[in-house]
Amino acid sequence: MTMVEPQTTGTGRVTVPALEHLLGIAIPVLDDGFVRVVDYLGGDESIVQAARVSYGAGTKSFREDRGLIRYLLRHAHTTPFEMCEIKFHVRVPMDTWRQWIRHRTASVNEYSTRYSVAIDRAQRTDPAAWRVQDSGNRQGSKGFLPTEIGETLSREEAELQDAIHAAYDRRLELGVAREQARKDLPLSTYTEAYWKLNLHNLLHFLKLRMDAHAQLEIRDYARTIGERIVSQWCPLAWEAFVDYEQDGLNLTAAETEMVGLIAAGRMDEAKERALALNWIAITPGKTTIRREGKEFAEKLPRLGLTAPW
Amino acid sequence: MTMVEPQTTGTGRVTVPALEHLLGIAIPVLDDGFVRVVDYLGGDESIVQAARVSYGAGTKSFREDRGLIRYLLRHAHTTPFEMCEIKFHVRVPMDTWRQWIRHRTASVNEYSTRYSVAIDRAQRTDPAAWRVQDSGNRQGSKGFLPTEIGETLSREEAELQDAIHAAYDRRLELGVAREQARKDLPLSTYTEAYWKLNLHNLLHFLKLRMDAHAQLEIRDYARTIGERIVSQWCPLAWEAFVDYEQDGLNLTAAETEMVGLIAAGRMDEAKERALALNWIAITPGKTTIRREGKEFAEKLPRLGLTAPW
Amino acid sequence: MTMVEPQTTGTGRVTVPALEHLLGIAIPVLDDGFVRVVDYLGGDESIVQAARVSYGAGTKSFREDRGLIRYLLRHAHTTPFEMCEIKFHVRVPMDTWRQWIRHRTASVNEYSTRYSVAIDRAQRTDPAAWRVQDSGNRQGSKGFLPTEIGETLSREEAELQDAIHAAYDRRLELGVAREQARKDLPLSTYTEAYWKLNLHNLLHFLKLRMDAHAQLEIRDYARTIGERIVSQWCPLAWEAFVDYEQDGLNLTAAETEMVGLIAAGRMDEAKERALALNWIAITPGKTTIRREGKEFAEKLPRLGLTAPW
Amino acid sequence: MTMVEPQTTGTGRVTVPALEHLLGIAIPVLDDGFVRVVDYLGGDESIVQAARVSYGAGTKSFREDRGLIRYLLRHAHTTPFEMCEIKFHVRVPMDTWRQWIRHRTASVNEYSTRYSVAIDRAQRTDPAAWRVQDSGNRQGSKGFLPTEIGETLSREEAELQDAIHAAYDRRLELGVAREQARKDLPLSTYTEAYWKLNLHNLLHFLKLRMDAHAQLEIRDYARTIGERIVSQWCPLAWEAFVDYEQDGLNLTAAETEMVGLIAAGRMDEAKERALALNWIAITPGKTTIRREGKEFAEKLPRLGLTAPW
Repeated sequence: MTMVEPQTTGTGRVTVPALEHLLGIAIPVLDDGFVRVVDYLGGDESIVQAARVSYGAGTKSFREDRGLIRYLLRHAHTTPFEMCEIKFHVRVPMDTWRQWIRHRTASVNEYSTRYSVAIDRAQRTDPAAWRVQDSGNRQGSKGFLPTEIGETLSREEAELQDAIHAAYDRRLELGVAREQARKDLPLSTYTEAYWKLNLHNLLHFLKLRMDAHAQLEIRDYARTIGERIVSQWCPLAWEAFVDYEQDGLNLTAAETEMVGLIAAGRMDEAKERALALNWIAITPGKTTIRREGKEFAEKLPRLGLTAPW
Repeated sequence: MTMVEPQTTGTGRVTVPALEHLLGIAIPVLDDGFVRVVDYLGGDESIVQAARVSYGAGTKSFREDRGLIRYLLRHAHTTPFEMCEIKFHVRVPMDTWRQWIRHRTASVNEYSTRYSVAIDRAQRTDPAAWRVQDSGNRQGSKGFLPTEIGETLSREEAELQDAIHAAYDRRLELGVAREQARKDLPLSTYTEAYWKLNLHNLLHFLKLRMDAHAQLEIRDYARTIGERIVSQWCPLAWEAFVDYEQDGLNLTAAETEMVGLIAAGRMDEAKERALALNWIAITPGKTTIRREGKEFAEKLPRLGLTAPW
Repeated sequence: MTMVEPQTTGTGRVTVPALEHLLGIAIPVLDDGFVRVVDYLGGDESIVQAARVSYGAGTKSFREDRGLIRYLLRHAHTTPFEMCEIKFHVRVPMDTWRQWIRHRTASVNEYSTRYSVAIDRAQRTDPAAWRVQDSGNRQGSKGFLPTEIGETLSREEAELQDAIHAAYDRRLELGVAREQARKDLPLSTYTEAYWKLNLHNLLHFLKLRMDAHAQLEIRDYARTIGERIVSQWCPLAWEAFVDYEQDGLNLTAAETEMVGLIAAGRMDEAKERALALNWIAITPGKTTIRREGKEFAEKLPRLGLTAPW
Repeated sequence: MTMVEPQTTGTGRVTVPALEHLLGIAIPVLDDGFVRVVDYLGGDESIVQAARVSYGAGTKSFREDRGLIRYLLRHAHTTPFEMCEIKFHVRVPMDTWRQWIRHRTASVNEYSTRYSVAIDRAQRTDPAAWRVQDSGNRQGSKGFLPTEIGETLSREEAELQDAIHAAYDRRLELGVAREQARKDLPLSTYTEAYWKLNLHNLLHFLKLRMDAHAQLEIRDYARTIGERIVSQWCPLAWEAFVDYEQDGLNLTAAETEMVGLIAAGRMDEAKERALALNWIAITPGKTTIRREGKEFAEKLPRLGLTAPW
């Protein structure tokens, strides 16, 4: 591939060779889904260029570009990241798509099951992949069911999906309109869409959907997009995102104060403060750790510190 | 119901008594859905006020307000309509919600089936309500299937929905995480959400979703919102919307020219022009009317005119 | 200029040769402004591709592509037009930029006069280009002032701008912060920005800003963007836009009815209806035409018809 | 004022008495600007209600509401904050408005100087209020010029503004269209607008514009809105915002690691790490602190720690 020479940037489009290699290639996700880059606009250098419209600066070194991109992301100067745009073709279970589409800042064209017969595939679950309801986090899962139960569940899942599809087909044969026949298809039915958005909004999507609290399925898509695609497309922005957004640590005002006390070894004061903040409650014989206290304690190991209670 | 007194003081908020009467009342839609106004901001007078920030005008008569609102809508001066906001609580089949949520300009909080057990209701179809696939319009329906077929379909629908729900319940009993157990629920499962947006974006939603080409289910919701709620909330804006957006007629440049020819009785010229425009094709013994020609012909009766072919 | 080869491989990006020729070239607008395409994503074929995700259709002929794009635009199926993106570098007087930036759907990075010294150019008016306040349309202009008055005005304008810039420079010399020193710069001061948005939003911008009611200055920019750039980038979408949006004719419900009456020669009924609609008011010896009546009458010549009053 | 009783919330709108007292009152900002609440929708309880649509929970205590709102904000669950809406009437110098309007998520209707004569006031600077260009932060100011210089600058400012306004008036007298006559008005000219947005977007605006790096003028507006208005409207959300967003501390991945080293007293390792990260550069006789290192060092006092260099 012939790269556009840096000095001809003014006349040709910004091109990212590493991403060119990925164009059109479907990267598999889940049992029958994929993510595919269809088109893109810009790259790391577009971010730099936009930031520099402020001061018409001339050529800068790679190190300065990296420093500038990191500075922008660290300080939430997000508009230059909007200067990069990417367009995907994705294949996703509707259940996952329902979460995905809640991000309103993208352009979307989805496969129409009013116009066409629905895709004849629904996501199937491996016997070893049935997740257990988390008792602590009401909206999460934790670990897996034993395989023998999983095998029953997977068999029933297959039968159920087959029965639903048979009913769908029967409706179509009897002449029911597609827009109505589809009404009982399972949420696990695959759909496809073009999905186009700018890098700023994509990073926001990734931040929320690569998070450990996101549902496993959408997390798989998000990680594929982030680690396999954005990392190639805008490596400097991706590196900064990982350092600041993904692996960074946010402390609230009270947490900041508490870290100061703990780091100074003033454990008694820290404990008293925690009591005053209602992070912990002490009754004779029992210390209860409340939600904000628990969240704080979870941050401490990264700082090499321990909770004062 | 204790009503908020309208305009109690000069410093209070804009209040619309007719809408106050509707607050909190669930208006039924489909077999188990509803639309309910939860809160609102502004009314016709807010539109007028925003338009008049331009020229700090004093009190104006009702007739002038009506004229101004009509003028704004006719000329696509849409920003003053953003000064009104409304918040609904809706209950909708997910299948319909999938279309609804494509409108990106609203604020949404939806019932979470990760956090809670799914609503134990799916939309059911009356034996007389199974629609036939339209052969002309690929994404539409036309008429209904005979009731005896409908009865079979409705019985099968009930059995299918019951089987799916039984499978869902079994998964939950076995400890499967809610976020995963839900994966094969039918698209017809009801969901609930708060949906909040401004009047400009709501009118755009209504224009598209009250349209004859919209799917029946979402059209029922849109008509309920428009005819029962917006008509009470902002009666002047609603009247203008009906006159201009809903019942107005848009002519393309070529259609405008054609109407001129037909209105002048120059039918031969009109036919020739239609040929040149590729609206019709004439072969010995046969005249084919193409899509643009057909759409044009469908507009003519409203103008009391007939097609020249 | 080294051009990116069009469609070099199956995995490459959509490329529009006609637009490649314009990349980086500043097209002059006003006395010292310009519009320059910096980058783009997609073209007519991207619109078609997005529309066809609905039905996975194979290759289609050029005629079918044109028909599809026209159909989409005619029926306000606007999402496929969001699949094209374009990025401009513009130089615009701040006065014009104030109107421009009201379009909220674009990504923007503007030259910072906090960070850098302001651009040392303000828009200057040719002696023959001073426009007269329109008495009919309060927010418009109509015709030009005599050149001898214009010459005085232009001389005073130059002196005023020079005085302001001298004051600005003096403040900077005395050490005043740039962010404060700029506060009295004239609105006519040029600014520069990157401006990036999708085709759907761009066409909306063009519809409003190429309109005869838009201010001359922004109209010049909009026409340059539309006629010189979009026409090259997405010629099929542009053609459809001109036919439907720009040169189309919108009739309200009442206007549609009136056209029917007039086209049928039922002039008396038409006049009565106009009276009932409050479009005209008749007092002995005088017929007053109200705003809606006037607007209607202005549409009639395009249909070869005349008003009934 | 008659308050809506809490138990009638189902039928009336959510009302916030503390904000009702502020309705319509212009709070002065700068020498001739103001901020005025015109209307609002919702309050803290609307945030809670939206978050609870997930699990149809019944009445909760105030303490639980506070905890929920804090949880939402801490975890960037931002959609419930969109359920509150507020509408302001503001009077702002155009210079400040140019920054303000960059926030694209609000609805805006601005005073039109095409339609009406421009507001006859520009912001004037007190002799003691001329700020000095910051040499460290290129886009900031630092301290004030001596009053005797300030007096000259203020006198010149007044003369300049008077001269510009005289030119503007002369143009209008000669019949120049308002849209053109205004072109050389100073950026400091006051404008007015209605500005309406939801709480989530407002908090984002406040976070950026109350920041120490924001320009003084817009900071004055932001602080007025935040501290005087939002604090009254949604006190729980405001408290959480202050604790987490405003006074919180964000550490990058590298900073987190460094804090751990410093808190553990492993200063040599910390210094080596800083070298490896390029935060500092050591040459014989000189230690240079680079930008990321400087930013890190500025965070340490809040944690009661000191830099290892």
